[in-house]
Amino acid sequence: MKTLLIICDGMADRPVPELANKTPLEIANTPNMDWLAKHGVCGIIDTIAPGITPGSDTAHLALLGYDPYEVYTGRGPFEAAGAGIDLKGGDVAFRANFATVDDSGAITDRRAGRISGTEPLAEELQKISVKGAKIIFKSTTGHRGAFVLRGEGLSHEVSDSDPHEVGKKPLRIAPLLQEQQPTLPVYPLITGGIRKYVVRRNRAVKTAKILNEFSKKAYDALDKHPLNVERKKNNLPAANYLLLRGGGIVPHLTPIKERFGVDGTCVAAAALVKGVCRLAGMRVVDVPGATGSVNTDLHAKAKVVLKSFEDQDFVLLHVKGTDEASHDGNARAKIELIEKIDAILSQFIDEVDLITVTADHTTPVSVKDHTGDPVPVLISGDSVRVDDVQEFGERSVTEGGLGRIRGKDLLPILANLMGKTQKFGA
Amino acid sequence: MKTLLIICDGMADRPVPELANKTPLEIANTPNMDWLAKHGVCGIIDTIAPGITPGSDTAHLALLGYDPYEVYTGRGPFEAAGAGIDLKGGDVAFRANFATVDDSGAITDRRAGRISGTEPLAEELQKISVKGAKIIFKSTTGHRGAFVLRGEGLSHEVSDSDPHEVGKKPLRIAPLLQEQQPTLPVYPLITGGIRKYVVRRNRAVKTAKILNEFSKKAYDALDKHPLNVERKKNNLPAANYLLLRGGGIVPHLTPIKERFGVDGTCVAAAALVKGVCRLAGMRVVDVPGATGSVNTDLHAKAKVVLKSFEDQDFVLLHVKGTDEASHDGNARAKIELIEKIDAILSQFIDEVDLITVTADHTTPVSVKDHTGDPVPVLISGDSVRVDDVQEFGERSVTEGGLGRIRGKDLLPILANLMGKTQKFGA
Repeated sequence: MKTLLIICDGMADRPVPELANKTPLEIANTPNMDWLAKHGVCGIIDTIAPGITPGSDTAHLALLGYDPYEVYTGRGPFEAAGAGIDLKGGDVAFRANFATVDDSGAITDRRAGRISGTEPLAEELQKISVKGAKIIFKSTTGHRGAFVLRGEGLSHEVSDSDPHEVGKKPLRIAPLLQEQQPTLPVYPLITGGIRKYVVRRNRAVKTAKILNEFSKKAYDALDKHPLNVERKKNNLPAANYLLLRGGGIVPHLTPIKERFGVDGTCVAAAALVKGVCRLAGMRVVDVPGATGSVNTDLHAKAKVVLKSFEDQDFVLLHVKGTDEASHDGNARAKIELIEKIDAILSQFIDEVDLITVTADHTTPVSVKDHTGDPVPVLISGDSVRVDDVQEFGERSVTEGGLGRIRGKDLLPILANLMGKTQKFGA
Repeated sequence: MKTLLIICDGMADRPVPELANKTPLEIANTPNMDWLAKHGVCGIIDTIAPGITPGSDTAHLALLGYDPYEVYTGRGPFEAAGAGIDLKGGDVAFRANFATVDDSGAITDRRAGRISGTEPLAEELQKISVKGAKIIFKSTTGHRGAFVLRGEGLSHEVSDSDPHEVGKKPLRIAPLLQEQQPTLPVYPLITGGIRKYVVRRNRAVKTAKILNEFSKKAYDALDKHPLNVERKKNNLPAANYLLLRGGGIVPHLTPIKERFGVDGTCVAAAALVKGVCRLAGMRVVDVPGATGSVNTDLHAKAKVVLKSFEDQDFVLLHVKGTDEASHDGNARAKIELIEKIDAILSQFIDEVDLITVTADHTTPVSVKDHTGDPVPVLISGDSVRVDDVQEFGERSVTEGGLGRIRGKDLLPILANLMGKTQKFGA
C-alpha cells in the first residue's frame, strides 16, 4: 500500500489579527487538503507532548515513532548524518564552525569571514590523530561542518568550546557531570538511565580530554595551512580554529523497517530532517532544485516521490519553506507556499493509497519561532474511518475522529492502516 | 453500585463498502446501545496504544487496568489459568498438543488424529518427575492441553518444541537468549527489564534442560501407555508426544480487588479471557450454553450476570462470537449477533447502575484478523457526565465526552464512578 507522509515544517500557526483572526492554513485556498480531510480522518498531534516546543529534529524523531526523551542526545548526530557521514551507534557528533583566533588566542570572528570552500581544511583535520578516538570531519555549508569522534566509551555529556562571543577565547571542554551524583537526577532518560553515573562521568572526562587535545592540534594544523597563510596575506580572517557545540552521542535507533515493517524513503532538502531519516534507516534521496526554502522546486520533489513508490511503500515528503516564512513573520509568503503545496497534492491523490498531511510543529508568524501548540493532521485512504471534518485547518480538525494523539503514535497508526503491524498477544 | 462491563470481542470494524461504507455496528439495529450512548458518556479506546494490534489476552489485561508491556510474557499462563489450573507467580506455562511421532522420531500427526479423552494420558504425565521442577498438566479440548512447570528460578525465555510441520522431528528446546547480551535489546520491558541478563540466561538454560528431559520421559511414558497401545492396534495415531509452545512465566498480577477495590466476576466462554480474569483475581463462572461462538446462549449468560450481582458489584461479560464472525469475514453474522447482544441489554438497563459497552479490539470483516484501530466505548449511569452522542458506533462516539483514552485507564475510570478510588495525596 503506497503511503505518503507529508510534513510541512512549522505550517501550523495561531490566529493572526491581520488575517481576521484566521491562521495562514485556514485562510489559504487549499482545495486538495480539504478534499483529503473530507475523505479522511482528522485530529491534532502533540508531536512531543502537550505544550512542549519541538525542534525539527525531535519532532521528526517522534513522527517516525521514536520517543525523543529516550533517543535524543543533541543536534550533532542528526546534522552529521544529514551531511552524509555514515554514523555508527556510539559515535559522538558535534556541530562545528570554522572561526578565527588571534595570536593571543581570542576569537576575532566566529565564522572566519563566512569562509566557504573549506574542503582542503577538512582533509587536514581528518589527518589529526588523538589517543582513543578517530576523527571524522565533513564541511557543510559556508563556515560550517560536522565533526564526529569515533571510539570506545565516548560521551556526549561534555560542554561546548564555542563561547558564542567574539573577543573571548574558545572554552576549555569539560565534563557536564559533577564528580558526585546529584541526589535529584534531572531527565534520567536523556542523561543515561540505567548506566551508572560513575561510568558516565569517566567517559565524559575522557571525551573532554580528547576534544581539548584535538582542538589544540587542529589550531596548529589549520593556522599554518597554505589556505590560511594565503588568507592572512589577503587580509582575510584565517579559518584557524574549529569551534564545537551541540554534541550528541549517536543513538541506537532500531530502523523503522524493523519496528514497523515499513521500508521508507525521505524526500527532503533540510539536512537535519535528512539526518533523522538516515538514522531511522530510511533511504534519503537528494532532489535537484529542492532548496529548503520558499522557492523550492515542489514539482521536482513530487516527481521523486512518485518514482520512489516504484520500489518502496512509504515516503516522507518534507517541505521546509513554511517554517522559513514563519521565522520571517511573513504570513503572505506562508500562505502562498501552502497553496503551492496544495497544488502538487492533486498528483498524489490518484497515485497514492494513503495520504497523511501534517506539520512537525507550530511556528506562528506572530512569534517567529517554534511554539508548543498542537498541529493538525489528516489521514486519507480506503481503510480509514472517515469523519465529518470538511476542511483542513488547525481548528476544523479538532472535531475529527483521531482526537488528540502524540507524535510517536502516528507511525504505528499508519503501519496499522498499511496492514504491517504484528499482533501483540494472542 | 452494580457495575457491568460488556466486552464484545472484535466488535469494532472499519467501513465496509458493501454496507454503504458503514460498519457492522453502525448498520446494526441497536436501540439499547443507542439509548445507553444517549444517556451516557462516550469515546474511543486504544486498548494497548494507538496503532498497536492487540491479542484478546493483552487487550483484556489492559481493560482490567494492567499494562500488558509490563505483565505479558506469553499466551501459556492465560490458557492454563483458563483451563482451571491454580497458578502461582513464577510458574512457567505452555500450550500443549498431543501429537504422533513414528519410530524414527518424526512427527506424523501434529494432533494425534484429533484425539479426545486424553485424561488418562494427563494423569500419566503428572507422574513424571524431573529434577528442579514439578509437572502440572491438564487436558483441555480435543488434543490440546495446558502444561505448567513449577519450581524456583524458571524462565519462559525458551523456544517451542512444536516445529509446526509434519515430517519433522520435535525441536530441541533451547534458551532464547544468546550467551552475550545483544547491543540492541528489543522490547526491554517485555523481556525482563532490569533483571540481569546473565541471571535470565541461566534460568532459560536450566528451564530448557528440564523441558527436554521431560519431553523424552513423556514420550517413553505415553508411547507404552495402554490407551496408545490400543490406538495403534486399531490403526489410530498414538498420542505419544507432547508438543509445547507459547511459553510464558506467570506474572505477579496484583488482584483488581486490591488495586481498585472492585470485587469482580467474569462471565465468559473463551478460555483465554477466563484465564486473564482468574489471574486478575476475579471469580470465573462457567455458564452452560455459553459456547464462545455466534450461537452462544446469551440469555443464559445474562441470567448468570444478574445472579452474580447478588454478592458482587462488578461483572465482566464477554461475548466471543463477534470476533468469530469477523475472522470468517461474515458481516451478516456479525450484525445479527450485535443485534442479539443489544436485545439482552434491556434486561440490564433497569437492574444495573453503571453499564459499559466496548470491544477488546477491532477485527474488520474485510481484514479477517485483529487490527490496531481504536474501539468505541460508552459508559452509562447516574454519575456520568452525559454528552451529546446519540448512537453507539465507531465514529459517532469520537465526539463524546471521554475523548481518546487507553485501555488501562478504563477500570480506574469505572472504579472512580463506583466511588471506590482512594485519594492520591491530601
